Amino acid sequence: MTTRDECLALDANDPFAPLRDEFILRDGEIYLDGNSLGPVSKGLQRRVSEVIDGEWAQGLVRSWNAAGWMDAPLVLGNRLAPLIGALEDEVLVADTLTLLLAKIIGGSLELRPERHVVITDAVNFHSDLYIVAAMARLAGRDIIVKTIDRDTLDDHLDDDVALVMLTHVDFRTGEMLDMAGITTAVHSVGALMLWDLAHSVGAVTLDVTETDVDFAAGCGYKYLNGGPGAPAFMYVASRWHGVLRNPLPGWLAHARPFDFESTYETAGGMRAYVTSSPSVIALGALDGALEVWARTTMADVRVKSLALTDLFVALVDDFLPGVFELLTPRDHDRRGSQVALRHADGYGVIQALIERGVIGDFRAPDICRFGFTPLYLRYVDVYDAVQVLADVMTSGAYLDGRFSARLAVT
Amino acid sequence: MTTRDECLALDANDPFAPLRDEFILRDGEIYLDGNSLGPVSKGLQRRVSEVIDGEWAQGLVRSWNAAGWMDAPLVLGNRLAPLIGALEDEVLVADTLTLLLAKIIGGSLELRPERHVVITDAVNFHSDLYIVAAMARLAGRDIIVKTIDRDTLDDHLDDDVALVMLTHVDFRTGEMLDMAGITTAVHSVGALMLWDLAHSVGAVTLDVTETDVDFAAGCGYKYLNGGPGAPAFMYVASRWHGVLRNPLPGWLAHARPFDFESTYETAGGMRAYVTSSPSVIALGALDGALEVWARTTMADVRVKSLALTDLFVALVDDFLPGVFELLTPRDHDRRGSQVALRHADGYGVIQALIERGVIGDFRAPDICRFGFTPLYLRYVDVYDAVQVLADVMTSGAYLDGRFSARLAVT
Repeated sequence: MTTRDECLALDANDPFAPLRDEFILRDGEIYLDGNSLGPVSKGLQRRVSEVIDGEWAQGLVRSWNAAGWMDAPLVLGNRLAPLIGALEDEVLVADTLTLLLAKIIGGSLELRPERHVVITDAVNFHSDLYIVAAMARLAGRDIIVKTIDRDTLDDHLDDDVALVMLTHVDFRTGEMLDMAGITTAVHSVGALMLWDLAHSVGAVTLDVTETDVDFAAGCGYKYLNGGPGAPAFMYVASRWHGVLRNPLPGWLAHARPFDFESTYETAGGMRAYVTSSPSVIALGALDGALEVWARTTMADVRVKSLALTDLFVALVDDFLPGVFELLTPRDHDRRGSQVALRHADGYGVIQALIERGVIGDFRAPDICRFGFTPLYLRYVDVYDAVQVLADVMTSGAYLDGRFSARLAVT
Repeated sequence: MTTRDECLALDANDPFAPLRDEFILRDGEIYLDGNSLGPVSKGLQRRVSEVIDGEWAQGLVRSWNAAGWMDAPLVLGNRLAPLIGALEDEVLVADTLTLLLAKIIGGSLELRPERHVVITDAVNFHSDLYIVAAMARLAGRDIIVKTIDRDTLDDHLDDDVALVMLTHVDFRTGEMLDMAGITTAVHSVGALMLWDLAHSVGAVTLDVTETDVDFAAGCGYKYLNGGPGAPAFMYVASRWHGVLRNPLPGWLAHARPFDFESTYETAGGMRAYVTSSPSVIALGALDGALEVWARTTMADVRVKSLALTDLFVALVDDFLPGVFELLTPRDHDRRGSQVALRHADGYGVIQALIERGVIGDFRAPDICRFGFTPLYLRYVDVYDAVQVLADVMTSGAYLDGRFSARLAVT
């Protein structure tokens, strides 16, 4: 069994230790919800101030060119690209994840006009399910959206499948899918592959180039720490540039936006997928949040992420044997950067933890989620969090939450 | 002829004078481009800091509920509603203007399934033209987009028209259209009316309720000073709530977003038109920028706006007779809050003005635009700007810009 002193020793030798200072964290609190909303960083505070008090206040309208605001969605895309293994000029930052998925799904269906099926995961994040249904409806022809058990994907792949859209790391269980294997299988029947990387980017190593992914999208507010509702990103492999149409184009996606032409003509490259300008302040926030990533590599992040989740699982096994059902795979190749524990009184467990300064979250009906973020989380935090969890479970404190939850609904 | 001393006297008695202190303006610069991008306000700086350093840094993920982030798009909509004459719970703040137009156009076309025509203005802002064409294409049936000379609208109105989409104040000329009369005419043939208020909100008095408008949308970064790429707003008259469908729904538009249901069921009211969360920092920025509006009324803003544009036009007439063609109507009922002057060397004129601290902007091929924003602009600013303009024209300095522009393209 790992001891607290051993955790402290790991922290003392942790190359990530200096990065923790870049984040604003509350004393006495252990934040295990960075998979939902990352914390504020000093880089973000600095860049937001630069954008507002410098670029905007001083440059005013001139900053669209002088401060590079016009190109910010693309420049920021290039900054983010290495985190997913994309090449230069294959990533755009804009809008929200659901709207970027809408653009990709809408465009994809036009690329396979003779095919009628879109496949997605029945337990995908529900916003993904809603937008794929919406875009199927807007396709102007009969499109069947099959929401399947993802483990049976091979049984559903045939030459009528236009697009497969899956989320790479399951938001409930933290299970990570086989990006390379699935993408290859999807391509083998001539279908296109779209990955939702919301719970993957900044959490696990990704290589959309090596795995031959067609399209991907993800959000900026989880492991990237870009702030609540941060702009999202989309990836379109270079081979689809000029081929994948943007079904929702705006003036900034025009080849010559300031010529004010009455007919839309697509810009080249990723600029084609802009609609109108995202908030420049929000782009600045994400830009500042990304600074810290220049000081590490995703390979190193992944090593520590697995060490943290391994440690958490091992300590829960040790201190609370048989209390929870572990929903997250123990196999490293199938695990993201969160751990999900099932318990019938999960709501009360999370409430009791939050009252004691350990911040996880609850997903109905019975899942306790804990996110592990190597940039700012220490080994001793994991140890202490499990001690609090053990105390909550053995003292029965988690039952208080259960009763108050029941009172709240009556 | 109005003298500079008379302008100073007007400023000394101006009830808006204290509001000017709320804005960050550069010494020695006269900013006549608030119709493109408004300046930074102290309220905005304060609210952005509250959101980042307070709500987010301290509350972290809990602020979605505790700080009201979940409801911010609706709360901010209600704050903005009085500026356009909307009722409570008829306005939403989210996304970008073009994307909100997409939602309204897409939904509208479903409301008139037997009709085939959408009418818009041939000189509408081009992003509006692109998105109406895009949504017509996504309608799944034959839709004809007629881009007409808006003065001939009556000739085109018949019972095949589903929707008319016009921009209320022309972005080039500053001409304001007759919202009441046009809306009535459009309704007389059973069509729906969508107004783009980008150049109207915060600039002119608006009453979408009194004028019986169906739908409207506008942006937050011009006269509302919400920052570059600020979230946009949309108005849906109460009678269309639950009727107008959101063609691009996301999880936050679901009746029960945290029940994670696999099938979309629309939320009631304006929440139906959310997709996923806009940047909370950007919402906070706009929220802070709107604070100053509580200290005035749109009626008072309009009085000063007309006084400023009247003054500018009169001084240009006086000092530079016959030099420019005035594109903006002299009639108050047909004028927004900007003045557009046509000149063959307009690019050089604007460049020379900017070099001398008077910030207007240029719209190809020959339009000099000047925006007048009562919250922070003084009468003496108008006087001094015209003096600089007169100097630029009489000295021939505007020709320097012409030559450098020509050099730049060769």
